[in-house]
Amino acid sequence: MHGVPAGTKVYVGVLGATGTVGQRFIALLAGHPYFVVHALGASTRSTGKPYFQAVHWKQTDPIPNAVRELVVQPCSPEHFLECTVIFSGLDADAAGDIEGAFRAADLAVFSNAKSYRRDPHVPLVVPLVNTHHFSIIHQQRSLHSPPLKKGFIVTNANCSTTGAVIPMAALERAFGPIESAMITTMQAISGAGYPGVPSLDIFDNVVPYISGEEEKMEWETLKILGGVAERDDGAKHFDMHSRTPLRISASCTRVPVLEGHTETISLRFAHRPPPSPQQVRDALSAFTPAVQALGCPSAPRHAIHVHEEPDRPQPRLDRNYLAGAGVSVGRVRQCPVLDIKFVVLVNNVNIGAATSSIINAEMAILKGIVEL
Amino acid sequence: MHGVPAGTKVYVGVLGATGTVGQRFIALLAGHPYFVVHALGASTRSTGKPYFQAVHWKQTDPIPNAVRELVVQPCSPEHFLECTVIFSGLDADAAGDIEGAFRAADLAVFSNAKSYRRDPHVPLVVPLVNTHHFSIIHQQRSLHSPPLKKGFIVTNANCSTTGAVIPMAALERAFGPIESAMITTMQAISGAGYPGVPSLDIFDNVVPYISGEEEKMEWETLKILGGVAERDDGAKHFDMHSRTPLRISASCTRVPVLEGHTETISLRFAHRPPPSPQQVRDALSAFTPAVQALGCPSAPRHAIHVHEEPDRPQPRLDRNYLAGAGVSVGRVRQCPVLDIKFVVLVNNVNIGAATSSIINAEMAILKGIVEL
Amino acid sequence: MHGVPAGTKVYVGVLGATGTVGQRFIALLAGHPYFVVHALGASTRSTGKPYFQAVHWKQTDPIPNAVRELVVQPCSPEHFLECTVIFSGLDADAAGDIEGAFRAADLAVFSNAKSYRRDPHVPLVVPLVNTHHFSIIHQQRSLHSPPLKKGFIVTNANCSTTGAVIPMAALERAFGPIESAMITTMQAISGAGYPGVPSLDIFDNVVPYISGEEEKMEWETLKILGGVAERDDGAKHFDMHSRTPLRISASCTRVPVLEGHTETISLRFAHRPPPSPQQVRDALSAFTPAVQALGCPSAPRHAIHVHEEPDRPQPRLDRNYLAGAGVSVGRVRQCPVLDIKFVVLVNNVNIGAATSSIINAEMAILKGIVEL
Amino acid sequence: MHGVPAGTKVYVGVLGATGTVGQRFIALLAGHPYFVVHALGASTRSTGKPYFQAVHWKQTDPIPNAVRELVVQPCSPEHFLECTVIFSGLDADAAGDIEGAFRAADLAVFSNAKSYRRDPHVPLVVPLVNTHHFSIIHQQRSLHSPPLKKGFIVTNANCSTTGAVIPMAALERAFGPIESAMITTMQAISGAGYPGVPSLDIFDNVVPYISGEEEKMEWETLKILGGVAERDDGAKHFDMHSRTPLRISASCTRVPVLEGHTETISLRFAHRPPPSPQQVRDALSAFTPAVQALGCPSAPRHAIHVHEEPDRPQPRLDRNYLAGAGVSVGRVRQCPVLDIKFVVLVNNVNIGAATSSIINAEMAILKGIVEL
Repeated sequence: MHGVPAGTKVYVGVLGATGTVGQRFIALLAGHPYFVVHALGASTRSTGKPYFQAVHWKQTDPIPNAVRELVVQPCSPEHFLECTVIFSGLDADAAGDIEGAFRAADLAVFSNAKSYRRDPHVPLVVPLVNTHHFSIIHQQRSLHSPPLKKGFIVTNANCSTTGAVIPMAALERAFGPIESAMITTMQAISGAGYPGVPSLDIFDNVVPYISGEEEKMEWETLKILGGVAERDDGAKHFDMHSRTPLRISASCTRVPVLEGHTETISLRFAHRPPPSPQQVRDALSAFTPAVQALGCPSAPRHAIHVHEEPDRPQPRLDRNYLAGAGVSVGRVRQCPVLDIKFVVLVNNVNIGAATSSIINAEMAILKGIVEL
Repeated sequence: MHGVPAGTKVYVGVLGATGTVGQRFIALLAGHPYFVVHALGASTRSTGKPYFQAVHWKQTDPIPNAVRELVVQPCSPEHFLECTVIFSGLDADAAGDIEGAFRAADLAVFSNAKSYRRDPHVPLVVPLVNTHHFSIIHQQRSLHSPPLKKGFIVTNANCSTTGAVIPMAALERAFGPIESAMITTMQAISGAGYPGVPSLDIFDNVVPYISGEEEKMEWETLKILGGVAERDDGAKHFDMHSRTPLRISASCTRVPVLEGHTETISLRFAHRPPPSPQQVRDALSAFTPAVQALGCPSAPRHAIHVHEEPDRPQPRLDRNYLAGAGVSVGRVRQCPVLDIKFVVLVNNVNIGAATSSIINAEMAILKGIVEL
Repeated sequence: MHGVPAGTKVYVGVLGATGTVGQRFIALLAGHPYFVVHALGASTRSTGKPYFQAVHWKQTDPIPNAVRELVVQPCSPEHFLECTVIFSGLDADAAGDIEGAFRAADLAVFSNAKSYRRDPHVPLVVPLVNTHHFSIIHQQRSLHSPPLKKGFIVTNANCSTTGAVIPMAALERAFGPIESAMITTMQAISGAGYPGVPSLDIFDNVVPYISGEEEKMEWETLKILGGVAERDDGAKHFDMHSRTPLRISASCTRVPVLEGHTETISLRFAHRPPPSPQQVRDALSAFTPAVQALGCPSAPRHAIHVHEEPDRPQPRLDRNYLAGAGVSVGRVRQCPVLDIKFVVLVNNVNIGAATSSIINAEMAILKGIVEL
Repeated sequence: MHGVPAGTKVYVGVLGATGTVGQRFIALLAGHPYFVVHALGASTRSTGKPYFQAVHWKQTDPIPNAVRELVVQPCSPEHFLECTVIFSGLDADAAGDIEGAFRAADLAVFSNAKSYRRDPHVPLVVPLVNTHHFSIIHQQRSLHSPPLKKGFIVTNANCSTTGAVIPMAALERAFGPIESAMITTMQAISGAGYPGVPSLDIFDNVVPYISGEEEKMEWETLKILGGVAERDDGAKHFDMHSRTPLRISASCTRVPVLEGHTETISLRFAHRPPPSPQQVRDALSAFTPAVQALGCPSAPRHAIHVHEEPDRPQPRLDRNYLAGAGVSVGRVRQCPVLDIKFVVLVNNVNIGAATSSIINAEMAILKGIVEL
């Protein structure tokens, strides 16, 4: 296990630095023990300007002083060669080419974009769940010619998927595979970026549709909760939970909430009899992900907060618990149709986005995949 | 079949006239072809005052002129003896005793309260679904000594239940019994009455719990969608859908929306293979309840509006369709876990409350259960 | 006075028909006694399509059947030659050229855009206030070479201005000129069109700035409340309230409200002593604009509704009073700094926009400025 | 000047500990350098229970551990005799008697309630403005028989008043007395406590009336901005700004915002010519209250943040600046009717309530009025 010696500073670059996810990366990194924002990339509209002029800053904390005057660069690798870690908050339409170019330049890219999530050689990692998927990175590097020494891409998951897979992973660890999951999401407007959802569309309203979201939840969950299998020739692949097929049915809605996705989840387990609600509560509460056990600085000190009060979790009251790095679960009870149902609350902009990439990078350093 | 001769006026009384449901009764009855508000009942705080002084009117239309100056009475039957129909918007804590006393005084009571919904002799009627349950009223009357000639109680259902059972009834009629239903509701604040939900609790928030609501949905649905069975001795009872057991799992949440409950619903049918999404759309769209076929004036001219657009129904855009007397369904598609899933939107204050009682009363007149 | 004979149909065209103002024109015209929507104009993205396909319809009533299948035309005059009246809901950037071309083609244009509001020959008309400004139209026509026979442009005012000038006009009529006005607006999001205000900007927030809005209020009010003066050579001009200079100070804010602008207004009168609050209430309530007296079908039957309750007007409760064609005033009381203060509520999308143009056109017909 | 020696702990009691202001006191005191919550008082419904059971905690941070298990006491002085400072978050109906009893028991009471604000011997203190009003405390004590040694009451101001007087005090210090002020407030729902404003009243709405609020602003401002005058017999009184009469006109509204009151303010100065906008900006930005200069730990390190961006301050973005202990001002510009206008944003639950009492107590210790 590779630690980060006290006093070490690790230079990071942020792509899409002026967007909402990029801003969140910068805000979260302001107090980081070793990551130091060293380079910022954005579209040509912003390049050449000091950050504070290029950005329409929407966070409640002011722009960190160390970043205010950094001059925004184009998103091409030559401006980021001094960075050990690249965080990408790029939009999906730009992310594919740019992140590919950064990897080809032998840079380690931790991306919040969806472009590479379905790539069979790119790990799709929710850090509280499946950092063991990093094991495919060696193969990802070897596909390049010549093979990459340092470069790779790791993506984090969709924010709604993240909220669902954390408790599901905890329960699979305790009670064996899940067979079916019915999920309805009530997603915050910040999940759509800026300008995102027009106020006229969502005030006093629910929009029962988010383009592509249900497909993402139904597919990403399989990749994340599945394992990494090895063929006879040593080639690795993601097994998509195929040893126990998992059927997921997601209904995604947008509600008038600023931050924090609420999800109602019902599960059926493969093993009979299923666990009781109290066993489920205990297992969720006891869940300790590797990133927490190993001491990643941005990992929450408690991954899943289980509420006993009947009316929690609630986005406004619970989204900032542990800086939004864990999830909250409440109302664990029997489901008359499947086995168990509960409510989960995930901070879509923290563990559902930027925080995931940051913990992934911390873990990659701990595992020696990123070398200092 | 008993019609209402042109020009006939039917006197009605409204109990709980100053509350939110009572106000809605009064607003809806303002333009009714034959119902005329003749007497108003409320708590002692209001009695003796003209209505416009007693009420804190919260509707967007002004108080109907014919009602403004009516003096509010205590909720005791002697003040309502000239009324052919009583609509009750009483709170549950008062409704049990008062509605019982009105029935004992041989008055026909159509109640929005929950007090008698579980009574084995009281029909729980969603007018677009099960007005045939009126058949138990004879037995309800006969339990009194001496048997009642005119008096009875009919209740309508909880607003969330109403939204679910209308499409479910349409589908059972077309495709046979439903076996399982998973429902998540996103309910409007007006469902909680006034003052109801404190703004500090629901602004920028979702509250994933409404006391007693899930139990109501899971129980009421069985009574409504079940039949009226007859024992050997001729006694009737509600069969609670027992010929094909129906398991319902409801998760009820409150969202920052003024009016209109949104529900995501997944269903599994008993008969295999289940209908296709297109067959479901066609059956929903074709559904014609008896109250519509027979021409109840407040019945919607179309019970279920099926949306083709992917992002509908939405509460703000669709809650006032057909004066809120029908429901809207959208996003009909296959469910990876059960068979079919869709989204339903029900106006909780119209068909989900006062409009249901009004149509029930219209139908009771048409069937001769209420005699003019 | 020229009336519209019963049964007459007056063909109208709508420019910017797919935008929010255009949609509101179409919704409002659906039940009009003589205006019939005959032609629709929009940008090239929409032309050639039937309206229901071209528009993302955002009104709560469905698209009127008579308009659904109309094929959208380019905004050039040759497609609108059969129209007697043109309503323009164009955006300001397009309105200048297009409306000018329609006028040059001898068409009568009633515009909601700001492009011609400051034109010294174009009347800026709030129909409840200053339809006598139509008297400059003859001069406007004569500026063309050859002079126009039928063509002209009339604009309505900014929505916030409209809310302020209606009570101010009523008070000037009763008590003589106003000398100072301090106004703070709390404006609804629908005032910004669609997509307009991003939800992330206005949820749980107040934005104390609307670009250009304060300047509009401070300038337009002078043009509207001022008179039409005549020089020795017979040339007419707007006197901008110059006989008694009027100082206006506006502070414009955006609040999380869908529809209905609320304004706090304090006034100082030129004549001493100023009227009492009760005199002000009486004068507001008695105010009868010419368009109402002469029977324009879309004029409200009461221009100013004066509330006695201390907590009214409120946008959600009062914005639809009289179909949003009048304004509501409440809390009339003495101002410790100026003379009188009160609160006004104006429906920004009805009398604050489309309804104004429609009444203007009705009045122009009544006055014979538009000939049938 | 009396400091607080390092390591000293000052015991404090909180009255009304379960209410919203009480909760905020407890949350704010959690990290205080020397105040330690030692006793909690609430109504009989709560007494005898550990705090975490008695309270319906509504803050986003969890209940501080040091307070969770404290047993709630009745609000009578004998339970608070070990406390050096009492903070009162009592409702106005209870505050009068209870706070009087605590003072009579020789306890130092810092109250957020309105009960004693108009008392001619009780200082009404906004800590960034008029802690010199503490000079009347000696006289307040002497009215008791026998004179009190330690006991007194200090109140802080209404939240809206607080927002207005901070910039007004800064400007009077720089440019001499203000003569007139026109203020419109847009106040957050949290200003009404819990349950406070029903959601049905304020969703998608503005309520242009808050009972008693305008009178408070118009009266309290005079007491706070006025001086302490001395009569010939040495008796002190508040001069209510009488040397230069100050006329204030307030229009108070409630808007759908959780926290943070926005106010538009126009001022006229007594001295001519008035300052320019830039002079006003400079004076506001330079304003350094005594509590800041003397190092009260809860005083903001910058009292007034002056925004240059045209669209700030905004409640959601600016209410937490400096922990809500200062105010934000923006849009400083000339007023066409008075002299200068601007927008101010005040955090109604921090500097507008609990934070003010805390800084007042810190300052009273520094000045030796409270002895350790």
